[in-house]
Amino acid sequence: MLLGAIEGGGTKFVCGIGTTDGQIVERISIPTTTPEATLDQAMSFFANKGIAALGIGTFGPIDVNPQSPAYGSVTSTPKPHWSGYRILDHVQRFMDIPVGFDTDVNAAALGESVWGAAKGLRNCLYMTVGTGIGVGAIVEGNLVHGLLHPEMGHIVVKRHLLDSYAGNCPFHGDCLEGMASGPAVEKRWETQAVQLDAAHTAWELESFYIGQALATYILILSPEVIILGGGIMNQAHLFPRIREHVKSHLNRYVQHPVFSTDLETYIVPPALAGNAGLCGALALAKEALIR
Amino acid sequence: MLLGAIEGGGTKFVCGIGTTDGQIVERISIPTTTPEATLDQAMSFFANKGIAALGIGTFGPIDVNPQSPAYGSVTSTPKPHWSGYRILDHVQRFMDIPVGFDTDVNAAALGESVWGAAKGLRNCLYMTVGTGIGVGAIVEGNLVHGLLHPEMGHIVVKRHLLDSYAGNCPFHGDCLEGMASGPAVEKRWETQAVQLDAAHTAWELESFYIGQALATYILILSPEVIILGGGIMNQAHLFPRIREHVKSHLNRYVQHPVFSTDLETYIVPPALAGNAGLCGALALAKEALIR
Repeated sequence: MLLGAIEGGGTKFVCGIGTTDGQIVERISIPTTTPEATLDQAMSFFANKGIAALGIGTFGPIDVNPQSPAYGSVTSTPKPHWSGYRILDHVQRFMDIPVGFDTDVNAAALGESVWGAAKGLRNCLYMTVGTGIGVGAIVEGNLVHGLLHPEMGHIVVKRHLLDSYAGNCPFHGDCLEGMASGPAVEKRWETQAVQLDAAHTAWELESFYIGQALATYILILSPEVIILGGGIMNQAHLFPRIREHVKSHLNRYVQHPVFSTDLETYIVPPALAGNAGLCGALALAKEALIR
Repeated sequence: MLLGAIEGGGTKFVCGIGTTDGQIVERISIPTTTPEATLDQAMSFFANKGIAALGIGTFGPIDVNPQSPAYGSVTSTPKPHWSGYRILDHVQRFMDIPVGFDTDVNAAALGESVWGAAKGLRNCLYMTVGTGIGVGAIVEGNLVHGLLHPEMGHIVVKRHLLDSYAGNCPFHGDCLEGMASGPAVEKRWETQAVQLDAAHTAWELESFYIGQALATYILILSPEVIILGGGIMNQAHLFPRIREHVKSHLNRYVQHPVFSTDLETYIVPPALAGNAGLCGALALAKEALIR
């Protein structure tokens, strides 16, 4: 049995065909233009592939509440053409199969919990640090939606003492995303993040903010594992530094054996690596099929 | 059918008998001394009452993981005699009925979701602001436990510009509890909280910190309603101020109709009022019975 997966991003939509055990057998990448053009191309890719269900993990904000009249649509976004667009309606004009629909980060969290680093666990976080900062969460076996869906990238952070950068979040200035997203790093240091070598202060600040945010998530959600992905996390030297900052922020308050370790098995890269997003969408398809 | 409930606090244990529809029919209050003496008195109260199940919502930190060898015990606490005490074992020596065991705040959240302000909702928070700050959460219908259990009172907060108080959390100094618990208010202003009139700056700072923390919880958990209890929240004038601070911290980022309102139905006192804790323990008993 084959399943379809769409990883919808702000610059590209990756579409894939996969199996129920998480293997991607075919994929294409479509540049994100208007919703109509982008989704029409995606639908052409899936035509006659015989998929039994489709999963869509997409950038947002989106309406993920099946009881809402706007379920399956993008809500308000600065991205031209996409505000209010009904993605799910578009897809359902082309196919009459179960469709799972969730945020890109919730999808990635689900994928890692089904086939990756959180396999068999009932609580995990998947955080992506790139153009933006997003976090998907599974709590007691369920993807977290709640009133809307989490927007964990925008939490308040305490500033690093050496940091005078104002932050670049249009809503909150110096929230986590405003201080630690890829664009924040690049604007603060006026250079591309990949050009900053591992010894640069940039990474001390980055680890400080991400570590602080993870400590907050740990205090609130008590995840069993935390998976960090996204472009910025390709700087592998960040992992041990972030783990140190998490421990220093928690300051021995949370008493669990894992916090006596160096957190090497607690704060990890995606086991699905570059496939985390697409496999996540595949996991949404699988879930839609079962439901 | 009657159920038993224990609301275990640092200064008193309240024990009650109630019905499956949340009515408390009898109660006593026992001063918290040693665990043996306190629990023996509680067991005497319940003897021959014919309860079908017991719920225990207690101060912590506690081990709430049924798979853990230490399930049902207090973990490490500065409170003399209580570290490592096996509450559940003590109780099960006296009664052979289903026993539910969780944190006091998780119990209160559950009680409000079964009979109170969060009735019928799948996501809610119950926060108590008193001697400490604790938060219980229900996410997609489940109490949040995760790796351990949340310790949301200890999240990082950004300081109020007018506030030079160092904070009184022994672990983190100026975390939320260090800045906004009852003892923090009293040490900062060197007077009893109840003596500070509504116009005092103390309450502006208090609303700022609580509002900021609620904004963080909203971004992470997306609750459908937030219930605020505890001694400090008896200052009813705090509610509208906290709601304003929540809106100002979120700064129109979270797009849901409720955030266009004054949040009067979103951030509320416990519908179960002074019974929130005991009814919460009753709800744990009911859940244990069903399970």
